[in-house]
Amino acid sequence: MSEEKKKNAIYIGKKGTMNYCLVVVTIFNKGEEECTIRARGRSISKAVDVAEISVRRFLPEIVEIADVVIGSEDLQNDDGQTKTVSTMDIVIKRK
Amino acid sequence: MSEEKKKNAIYIGKKGTMNYCLVVVTIFNKGEEECTIRARGRSISKAVDVAEISVRRFLPEIVEIADVVIGSEDLQNDDGQTKTVSTMDIVIKRK
Repeated sequence: MSEEKKKNAIYIGKKGTMNYCLVVVTIFNKGEEECTIRARGRSISKAVDVAEISVRRFLPEIVEIADVVIGSEDLQNDDGQTKTVSTMDIVIKRK
Repeated sequence: MSEEKKKNAIYIGKKGTMNYCLVVVTIFNKGEEECTIRARGRSISKAVDVAEISVRRFLPEIVEIADVVIGSEDLQNDDGQTKTVSTMDIVIKRK
């Protein structure tokens, strides 16, 4: 996950899957051309759920999954230890 | 996840991450050209960890992530109910 701020980036955290799906649907209903779903570590599974549900169930005629990128990121704990976590970006674009 | 049997497919389940990394390393040490890491549902996060650790830590000069594909699959419970789960295929290829 690169550090630059992406336009229409949705960071997957502890909320329910449908909360994030609603954000995706809202972004495209506002007329935007693309959004990026970003997640780290255990949230990656939820990110895939959000992308699949948003694209296949809610916006199947309108958007598609344009790119899926996985990577690693070094996070520093409060006690100075570095831990590597996996990251994922899913780019959804208007067809 | 398509139903065809892929050559050198590694299905991510309940074992530890390093167990699957060892399978990836062994496949490429035997001279194979590619392998596919496949996972469903909650195991998807672990699949990304396996791919990242295998490629970046163990085989950085030798292999690369060639493709990441996400999808959905309908699973039938014992009581006949259908549940949709997210799937992921990560293709790793020799450079």
